[in-house]
Amino acid sequence: MKPNNILNFIGFDASYEESKIVLFGAPYDGTTSFRPGTRFAPNVMRSDSYGLETYSPYMDLDLEDYKLSDMGDLEFPFGNTNRVMEAIEETTKEILDDKKIPLMIGGEHLVTYPVVKAVFESHPNLHIIHFDAHADLRTDYLGESLSHASVIRRCHDLVGDQKIFQFGIRSGTKEEFEFAKKHLYMEKFNVETVCQIVDSLKDVPVYITIDLDVLDPSIFSGTGTPEPGGITFKELQHAISLLRTLYIVGGDVVELAPQYDTTGVSTATACKVLRELALAIIS
Amino acid sequence: MKPNNILNFIGFDASYEESKIVLFGAPYDGTTSFRPGTRFAPNVMRSDSYGLETYSPYMDLDLEDYKLSDMGDLEFPFGNTNRVMEAIEETTKEILDDKKIPLMIGGEHLVTYPVVKAVFESHPNLHIIHFDAHADLRTDYLGESLSHASVIRRCHDLVGDQKIFQFGIRSGTKEEFEFAKKHLYMEKFNVETVCQIVDSLKDVPVYITIDLDVLDPSIFSGTGTPEPGGITFKELQHAISLLRTLYIVGGDVVELAPQYDTTGVSTATACKVLRELALAIIS
Amino acid sequence: MKPNNILNFIGFDASYEESKIVLFGAPYDGTTSFRPGTRFAPNVMRSDSYGLETYSPYMDLDLEDYKLSDMGDLEFPFGNTNRVMEAIEETTKEILDDKKIPLMIGGEHLVTYPVVKAVFESHPNLHIIHFDAHADLRTDYLGESLSHASVIRRCHDLVGDQKIFQFGIRSGTKEEFEFAKKHLYMEKFNVETVCQIVDSLKDVPVYITIDLDVLDPSIFSGTGTPEPGGITFKELQHAISLLRTLYIVGGDVVELAPQYDTTGVSTATACKVLRELALAIIS
Amino acid sequence: MKPNNILNFIGFDASYEESKIVLFGAPYDGTTSFRPGTRFAPNVMRSDSYGLETYSPYMDLDLEDYKLSDMGDLEFPFGNTNRVMEAIEETTKEILDDKKIPLMIGGEHLVTYPVVKAVFESHPNLHIIHFDAHADLRTDYLGESLSHASVIRRCHDLVGDQKIFQFGIRSGTKEEFEFAKKHLYMEKFNVETVCQIVDSLKDVPVYITIDLDVLDPSIFSGTGTPEPGGITFKELQHAISLLRTLYIVGGDVVELAPQYDTTGVSTATACKVLRELALAIIS
Amino acid sequence: MKPNNILNFIGFDASYEESKIVLFGAPYDGTTSFRPGTRFAPNVMRSDSYGLETYSPYMDLDLEDYKLSDMGDLEFPFGNTNRVMEAIEETTKEILDDKKIPLMIGGEHLVTYPVVKAVFESHPNLHIIHFDAHADLRTDYLGESLSHASVIRRCHDLVGDQKIFQFGIRSGTKEEFEFAKKHLYMEKFNVETVCQIVDSLKDVPVYITIDLDVLDPSIFSGTGTPEPGGITFKELQHAISLLRTLYIVGGDVVELAPQYDTTGVSTATACKVLRELALAIIS
Amino acid sequence: MKPNNILNFIGFDASYEESKIVLFGAPYDGTTSFRPGTRFAPNVMRSDSYGLETYSPYMDLDLEDYKLSDMGDLEFPFGNTNRVMEAIEETTKEILDDKKIPLMIGGEHLVTYPVVKAVFESHPNLHIIHFDAHADLRTDYLGESLSHASVIRRCHDLVGDQKIFQFGIRSGTKEEFEFAKKHLYMEKFNVETVCQIVDSLKDVPVYITIDLDVLDPSIFSGTGTPEPGGITFKELQHAISLLRTLYIVGGDVVELAPQYDTTGVSTATACKVLRELALAIIS
Repeated sequence: MKPNNILNFIGFDASYEESKIVLFGAPYDGTTSFRPGTRFAPNVMRSDSYGLETYSPYMDLDLEDYKLSDMGDLEFPFGNTNRVMEAIEETTKEILDDKKIPLMIGGEHLVTYPVVKAVFESHPNLHIIHFDAHADLRTDYLGESLSHASVIRRCHDLVGDQKIFQFGIRSGTKEEFEFAKKHLYMEKFNVETVCQIVDSLKDVPVYITIDLDVLDPSIFSGTGTPEPGGITFKELQHAISLLRTLYIVGGDVVELAPQYDTTGVSTATACKVLRELALAIIS
Repeated sequence: MKPNNILNFIGFDASYEESKIVLFGAPYDGTTSFRPGTRFAPNVMRSDSYGLETYSPYMDLDLEDYKLSDMGDLEFPFGNTNRVMEAIEETTKEILDDKKIPLMIGGEHLVTYPVVKAVFESHPNLHIIHFDAHADLRTDYLGESLSHASVIRRCHDLVGDQKIFQFGIRSGTKEEFEFAKKHLYMEKFNVETVCQIVDSLKDVPVYITIDLDVLDPSIFSGTGTPEPGGITFKELQHAISLLRTLYIVGGDVVELAPQYDTTGVSTATACKVLRELALAIIS
Repeated sequence: MKPNNILNFIGFDASYEESKIVLFGAPYDGTTSFRPGTRFAPNVMRSDSYGLETYSPYMDLDLEDYKLSDMGDLEFPFGNTNRVMEAIEETTKEILDDKKIPLMIGGEHLVTYPVVKAVFESHPNLHIIHFDAHADLRTDYLGESLSHASVIRRCHDLVGDQKIFQFGIRSGTKEEFEFAKKHLYMEKFNVETVCQIVDSLKDVPVYITIDLDVLDPSIFSGTGTPEPGGITFKELQHAISLLRTLYIVGGDVVELAPQYDTTGVSTATACKVLRELALAIIS
Repeated sequence: MKPNNILNFIGFDASYEESKIVLFGAPYDGTTSFRPGTRFAPNVMRSDSYGLETYSPYMDLDLEDYKLSDMGDLEFPFGNTNRVMEAIEETTKEILDDKKIPLMIGGEHLVTYPVVKAVFESHPNLHIIHFDAHADLRTDYLGESLSHASVIRRCHDLVGDQKIFQFGIRSGTKEEFEFAKKHLYMEKFNVETVCQIVDSLKDVPVYITIDLDVLDPSIFSGTGTPEPGGITFKELQHAISLLRTLYIVGGDVVELAPQYDTTGVSTATACKVLRELALAIIS
Repeated sequence: MKPNNILNFIGFDASYEESKIVLFGAPYDGTTSFRPGTRFAPNVMRSDSYGLETYSPYMDLDLEDYKLSDMGDLEFPFGNTNRVMEAIEETTKEILDDKKIPLMIGGEHLVTYPVVKAVFESHPNLHIIHFDAHADLRTDYLGESLSHASVIRRCHDLVGDQKIFQFGIRSGTKEEFEFAKKHLYMEKFNVETVCQIVDSLKDVPVYITIDLDVLDPSIFSGTGTPEPGGITFKELQHAISLLRTLYIVGGDVVELAPQYDTTGVSTATACKVLRELALAIIS
Repeated sequence: MKPNNILNFIGFDASYEESKIVLFGAPYDGTTSFRPGTRFAPNVMRSDSYGLETYSPYMDLDLEDYKLSDMGDLEFPFGNTNRVMEAIEETTKEILDDKKIPLMIGGEHLVTYPVVKAVFESHPNLHIIHFDAHADLRTDYLGESLSHASVIRRCHDLVGDQKIFQFGIRSGTKEEFEFAKKHLYMEKFNVETVCQIVDSLKDVPVYITIDLDVLDPSIFSGTGTPEPGGITFKELQHAISLLRTLYIVGGDVVELAPQYDTTGVSTATACKVLRELALAIIS
């Protein structure tokens, strides 16, 4: 009986070389304004994932039937946002260079930006599907252009108009909602139009970013800024299942701050979302 | 840079003189039978409101576009229900005399009674819209006529038959439900008929009282007596938005006991309900 | 004024002799794999039940109009699963011999097995209606045939094919879902077909087992293995109300682990489910 | 195997008739000004007492070697302080009339008053030993003469000057400390002089009242008004052991509010204090 | 009855003009590396201070006998450490210019630096008494010279060798402890030598900075980095009382993160420390 | 920048081959009778250890100056105590065969037995130093001879009379205390005699087992059965430092159940105890 000290998400136990999807954690929450703690998400998810079945009755698919690997967490220079961004971007590039699909666990939403930057470099026609409670479209947040509240705006700077599709948005400044009207697709409050958007995105490379606070805080209270009025797990699960037909080139789940929900429900939910997303990408 | 020690709800920073709506707290929970703690609600809501956007994407309105003031909490003689009632009534009268609309944060539901009493004096044809899990129609509770469990019965004593409209009620004695059938309008469990009731109440003065436990405890566990089977935040938000066309002369949100929900979700929900209610009144 | 130290569920205060339904607790959680604690459920439910009304506005029925008794908890030899099984079975037999209906509060789901065994002996044509997040159809769990994860498989061993009807199932291994297809009725994820199943079960004896984790963890986080994507309280309440026309010969509610939900919401929910189930049986 | 629904403190399972000490709960917290919840203490202590050994290695005594009974909780008319006082006094008298020693679990400290009143009637030369963080010597609290903050003052009204001995006091108004100097014995902050006081109280009847907040909140955070700077459990245990030689005619432990300490440590501490006190009385 | 929305620490209700000590909050936690949250401390302390007596039985002094004012919290530009430092320094200078004594509630320990800087300008012979679990003597923390972990090193840059006196230190790098040996006074683990240090500091201006994590986490768990092995409240209270004879020209209490201790004990402790410190300064 | 998914205790990052001490986790809690959860301890300690300094100011030693490795957790067959025992024993033997010192994190106390068994085989003159609140000397617990409550009795079966030295014991049955008097050394309540025992154990191989509940629950509430009246961290730290001169051939720290203490203090304490113990062994 061999002891071990490797901590991977359940079902992600293939070697890097043989895997198609590579999972890694980006435990950074340096620009969080209200309640930090997302830095703890990846490892808490790995630990609690062992309460999860690898089989999804929703998709009738099993993680065990695929080759998936988990590289663990990136090690960040604490408190230096620019170097964190560089580290994530570099790792993503390596994964892409090896013809694998990067799948990231945040951290705050800002960590999505360097992944998108690397993926965009490989896939210049990149489209982004974005689930979130918040528009994240500010030009800056208190003067900082690289912020959790402006991360999708930064992605828009990269990919340009009408390439971003937002769902479930229910909080932001008036300016953000006005920006959205002009420059991208936004479904407010709900995720009912995912189906038709998916139909329009056949044959283009798509990145999926899931800010878990798109979920209602009744099922996902473990996050920095809970926003009542979110979608249910069933709605998110259904939306993810619709993505299966897309050409997905990368993805992430972000903004779990596990310590705020001592019941463990938020972490269990995050784990299930990650399982469904991985199955949607791989199948 | 000027320091300050004034604590107001976000967006309620106008002076009393220039404001149309005046917010105040009534931190009383003296007749609570099960789990007290609503006395802490107003100040916790003020503090946490700074995580809230002033802009409502539901209504496309912004608190910052209106003149709203926050008088802080009333100071109560502890343990003397009658003097508490008098203090609330007196304050409400002053606000009404100054041609402003009173908006109160409880406290337990009993604090609604003195506000209604003062408003009724100014508006003898007063109608009341009441969201709640509990009917609150007991003649008394363990011999006390002034109780959180009898507050709407006391309001009925004032305004009379067919002036009260209850929504979302899902708990009470058999007698309360029978009283309701005869003397007022009650939609059990849901808030689906708010629209048609609103249509029937054009041109009469209306008071809105929202016992937040009308919400399902999944989204609002921070209350004394959680009652499963409640409505969602989306349903309550929609119901409130329907009230915009009414002639609203006062309102309140009551029964948040913030300490029971350490995730902060209940307080965030209460803050958003208050924002939506204020916008429904002012717009 | 007579002091007392008898703790019964609200409304279950008749004597054993005069009662038609006999409630008892089976506080065992010895095979729980992830997060134990259901042993505390019966007494926490009894204590908190005093915040519950005996009147159900859903059914327009009142516990006080019926004769119901509460025998308290069984006393178990700690750590000896076989003797626990025997004790539960024996108690159930005594209740059945006295022509009363057994109603049990768990404990983990395994405690259902000895009750079903005793009820099946009295009613050889027994059918089982089963609400749960998990299929509980494993042949064994890590080599143990008597496990919370295999309890319904053990019941199937007893009652045979097409006698078990499962609702709300959303987690399990691929093998369990395949077994279900062949040997019993399973509605995945939802409880929409309860009505038609009830119609098909007139005139046969039926046992009802409610694993409370069939509820969404938003309303029921106080359980060992929370599974997002469950049903709402309203859906479960409605399903229970449909059971009224059946010939119910026994029932249970299991898997509340009250300490994981410090808000008290899970316990309040469990109490209301028990009230509704008792009223469905007795009326 | 006989089921049961009797809940008693561990080791207190003798019948009333054969017992020398009679335990009962007085779950009242109606005058609590800051954080209520002591009403839940007696039953939580009973439940958690099963994690306690009946043997005390401190005293080398075992509860199982004595005849002790537990009558359960008194049933109170909610919200009526005077009737609560009467009920407690009446029960105490009955116990005394039957030549037994009353031992009470609170509730807030006010419940001590009616017990002392009854005991004083039987023992006119009654002396009181009082452990507490607070002096509880106010003439009234916000106009109420019967208050948790004035309970020892009320006892002083009964027993008179120099009959009360306070230990561990560390909070109160300046007036209370000045009253204490003139009318009774007070050791501030510590319990170092218990030994010499005990020596001076041979041959007189003594009542022991332990407000558990005399303990430091590091070990006893489950109380309404935590006061840093208290004594350790070891110090309190030692002080209690010194009382063994006294002629103790009644006692109580009060002010546990178990829900504020979710770790269970406060309840475990309260249970151990009660065990030690019972052994000090009975041995 | 006049409502109000001014939130001050109990007993600090004099006007700025008439007061000798001016309290203000510096709710900044921007460089916290482990568990942030001290930004919430000042207002939680103000709220909970109303459970505190204004009279100290330790000192036999009462806050009500002095003129003390509370300016509330400074308003900070979020995320800009340099501007935060400037704002605190500027406020402190104004208070000093008005011949008053500044008393600050943090925030993380870094906020001490700008206060010391301003006080040092007025009092070039400034000495500092520092209570803390951590030495805070790093030259920098991950490259940042202005950090909670280097704040006393920065103060040393200002005041120079042998002007700083540390007590209770029990955590740091080997380098910090070696620096301390050469450049300042440090009592490790305990506060037993406060008395003799106080004797040596007559007639010089002294600043007192109390990082509350000097207390053992048994009594003070509400902080970012709990360090077992700290001092008791009694020891800290005694040490503070010894400071009374000094010429104190400013002070602070920092590093309460109230949300980590849901029992409220840490906040109660912080309030009492602040009361004792204020009385030591003013008397 | 290389990502990684290896989780080791801080400072334990040497390779197995080069290390003198080998740390491993034994996350088993199958016989826990009251509140399980120690299975989560090793990984929570690894995660939280990054808030710990590697330098001990108590010993003036630094983990970074030694070669220490962490093998991670053993993987156990769930629910099979005998196979768990075998797995731990086998791993310990391998470590001993490689001339290294085993250091284990539990898990419940029963996991100590197989380590002692393996160490005893290599060192037949083995002596055991045991810190605990509980004697753990039962012949069996409810019929089970392998139980957390009988683990030291099982060790006594191996090593024989007068080879075991217990400290801090404060709970058990009368029989256990009587057994102790005859067969081993026990210091009740305190750890004051560690110094003299250490003096008597020069030149013999010693195993150190630290049940962390020897600490007072004020500093260590995160455990299954909190026992007030324990020792302080300072006392335990001092006792450990006295062990440095011994010939230590193995050790463990057990019984942290991290989830019961949401403040993180218990885990921080456990980490510091492990650091001190490792330094005592290695230096």
